[in-house]
Amino acid sequence: MSTTAGNVIRCRAAVAWEAGKPLVIEEVEVAPPQAMEVRLKILYTSLCHTDVYFWEAKGQNPMFPRIYGHEAGGIVESVGEGVTDLQPGDHVLPVFTGECKECDHCKSEESNMCRLLRINTDRGVMIGDGQSRFSINGKPIYHFVGTSTFSEYTVCHVGSVAKINPLAPLDKVCVLSCGISTGLGATLNVAKPPKGSTVAIFGLGAVGLAAAEGARIAGASRIIGVDLNSSRFDEAKKFGVTEFINPKDYAKPVQEVLAEMTNGGVDRSVECTGNVTAMISAFECVHDGWGVAVLVGVPHKDAEFKTHPVNLLNERTLKGTFFGNYKPRSDLPSVVEKYMNKELEVEKFITHSVPFSEINKAFDLMLKGEGIRCIINMEG
Amino acid sequence: MSTTAGNVIRCRAAVAWEAGKPLVIEEVEVAPPQAMEVRLKILYTSLCHTDVYFWEAKGQNPMFPRIYGHEAGGIVESVGEGVTDLQPGDHVLPVFTGECKECDHCKSEESNMCRLLRINTDRGVMIGDGQSRFSINGKPIYHFVGTSTFSEYTVCHVGSVAKINPLAPLDKVCVLSCGISTGLGATLNVAKPPKGSTVAIFGLGAVGLAAAEGARIAGASRIIGVDLNSSRFDEAKKFGVTEFINPKDYAKPVQEVLAEMTNGGVDRSVECTGNVTAMISAFECVHDGWGVAVLVGVPHKDAEFKTHPVNLLNERTLKGTFFGNYKPRSDLPSVVEKYMNKELEVEKFITHSVPFSEINKAFDLMLKGEGIRCIINMEG
Ligand SMILES: NC(=O)c1ccc[n+]([C@@H]2O[C@H](COP(=O)([O-])OP(=O)(O)OC[C@H]3O[C@@H](n4cnc5c(N)ncnc54)[C@H](O)[C@@H]3O)[C@@H](O)[C@H]2O)c1
Ligand SMILES: NC(=O)c1ccc[n+]([C@@H]2O[C@H](COP(=O)([O-])OP(=O)(O)OC[C@H]3O[C@@H](n4cnc5c(N)ncnc54)[C@H](O)[C@@H]3O)[C@@H](O)[C@H]2O)c1
Ligand SMILES: [Zn+2]
Ligand SMILES: [Zn+2]
Ligand SMILES: [Zn+2]
Ligand SMILES: [Zn+2]
Repeated sequence: MSTTAGNVIRCRAAVAWEAGKPLVIEEVEVAPPQAMEVRLKILYTSLCHTDVYFWEAKGQNPMFPRIYGHEAGGIVESVGEGVTDLQPGDHVLPVFTGECKECDHCKSEESNMCRLLRINTDRGVMIGDGQSRFSINGKPIYHFVGTSTFSEYTVCHVGSVAKINPLAPLDKVCVLSCGISTGLGATLNVAKPPKGSTVAIFGLGAVGLAAAEGARIAGASRIIGVDLNSSRFDEAKKFGVTEFINPKDYAKPVQEVLAEMTNGGVDRSVECTGNVTAMISAFECVHDGWGVAVLVGVPHKDAEFKTHPVNLLNERTLKGTFFGNYKPRSDLPSVVEKYMNKELEVEKFITHSVPFSEINKAFDLMLKGEGIRCIINMEG
Repeated sequence: MSTTAGNVIRCRAAVAWEAGKPLVIEEVEVAPPQAMEVRLKILYTSLCHTDVYFWEAKGQNPMFPRIYGHEAGGIVESVGEGVTDLQPGDHVLPVFTGECKECDHCKSEESNMCRLLRINTDRGVMIGDGQSRFSINGKPIYHFVGTSTFSEYTVCHVGSVAKINPLAPLDKVCVLSCGISTGLGATLNVAKPPKGSTVAIFGLGAVGLAAAEGARIAGASRIIGVDLNSSRFDEAKKFGVTEFINPKDYAKPVQEVLAEMTNGGVDRSVECTGNVTAMISAFECVHDGWGVAVLVGVPHKDAEFKTHPVNLLNERTLKGTFFGNYKPRSDLPSVVEKYMNKELEVEKFITHSVPFSEINKAFDLMLKGEGIRCIINMEG
């Protein structure tokens, strides 16, 4: 039993006080975990677009002060009442969406959208008692998607924490908490390209590059990257992308360009942009008879997906996926193993690293569109 | 070797001389089959909406005079050069869409949309030489979808003919040529409802009732029929439909009514209406996480399928199917076997029968919306 267990921990956290304003490293108080909760010591965290998006709070419910962060690796410090699956010292990845193991979704083999712990960006408190575990001088600070990893210590519901191989280097596998697994799973679990097939990837950000990595692992023979930004292509080659199309270079819709390049259409496509035009192209570019299109990007709330129904009748399949269809607790350990046995290359996603004290640099890099993932070392 | 082989056969056929005008029983000449063709003696045929639709030729390319008919059972009379799979005396079902066994679609396990012999309603001649095999006093009569079964003898490409169990009664299994297999396969091959699941069927015509029959065979525990015509429900009960909804009885969209009835959505839905509003409802009524919607109906050419992409991201699957994903030559024999071993009940689809001389009565019944299938006995 650690000496901190059962006590409030005082530690550093990067607090967002206002929308779009630099985070401030503050000393916060982190309350002990309550029933079905665990307190984690975060060692490494990385920055994902979703953090930036909610921190900017353009069109989102502003909820401040708040501690962001949801891609991370850490170690269990202490556990609350009723927690039997985890114990102090376990190496874990917190995840923005949970797995209660009891609801109809958790019991379904096909779904990972847990009814209890499904992502909820509007909840800033613990699900058990509706309270925050973070405070500064008694004033509560909001949580973010059940993880709040921009803090040396955080409290999560046990259902939002995946126990992983303790030999896995947390400064690498922390990026498997969100975007990388999302893209990888979209290809491996949902699109399932047969060996030798042709795959189109729309959007070559972190998620799309991970989708390409999935296609490479699956043995696709052609991986066609599509992005409005041609500078993405050089990086994409490292992830197995063999050809590149910028829709801006053509007068006709990109789905027609792809159909011409592939004798009628690609076998699989994975959309990782969030743009509805790209979603429609990603669907319409798959081959009739057998093509499967998978949507990953989170669309604008007013977006409308439109297509002629004959595109469907001609035996195309359209699916969406959330977190790459991985069940966080059940499946994430196996993604870590893919890294451990060198099937999955994680290092190439990590382009930058900063000490925790310079976390705002990670925000700057992402806002400038530089690199893929920036690791934030909590000890720095 | 029959005495007719190699010779022109004179026989009766029901010729459509003009759009929407009653068919006329005429004596026609049927030329011998050429390379890769077979000549069939049709014993029973039935009427499907597609015949009526192209005969009415509202919005279709008018192509007259023409011999319609594509749901039928017959016996091979003679075979042309190069035909090795069939021989005189074989019992067969001609099919409106073929299987060449050589193209990429035929070689794919997933597709049945043969590149060579896929349905083409605008072609009125044989694919081999661009000629018709039917004539009256030397004047050619157009074929329809490669089958033209409203004739005592017809010529088909060998790829459009499925050889079946000779013990199967052709007056029953002839209906498996098109609509019934389409609905059945949409459920069994594409929607694949797990045992005990809840299935919604949109449209309770022949195709929808066959889709319901598929759900019954698959062991669905609730089969919810949706039709704008409440009189369809009584008939539907015989096909396993357990509950009925008429969208007209509700102020809110039917997908919301279904979600309330099923704790969030049905497990599978199959749309068999051709109406794009029903297609959208059929998609949006499936449960997030695992729901699969299958579109079967042939939509209006200007129809647009629209939905918010989040409906997809929440792990719903949308698929279309053509001929229930059955490969005509490879798979139709097994559908006949389902009937032979009493898994599939075909009799309940057959509500009327007429002698060939009264074929126009079958058209009248369909135009009035009476019954499901009317068998036309070619000997009468
Ligand atoms: N479903 C999930 O569980 C999940 C998890 C994480 C991220 N996401 C979503 O995945 C998407 C991608 O995330 P990311 O972090 O890689 O984003 P990103 O911004 O780094 O990358 C998106 C890329 O798409 C390109 N793009 C934009 N519009 C395009 C268009 N019309 N055609 C072609 N390319 C286009 C951009 O140039 C950019 O390179 C986002 O929508 C994100 O919200 C989903
Ligand atoms: N994909 C294929 O291979 C294939 C093969 C055969 C038929 N089809 C198509 O399947 C569809 C059904 O064929 P059918 O012969 O059973 O037709 P049908 O006309 O006998 O039945 C259609 C039923 O749908 C109902 N309906 C219409 N609009 C509706 C709505 N908005 N909501 C609920 N119910 C509605 C009608 O009341 C009717 O009972 C047609 O579009 C046909 O072209 C497709
Ligand atoms: Zn759950
Ligand atoms: Zn993320
Ligand atoms: Zn073929
Ligand atoms: Zn038909």
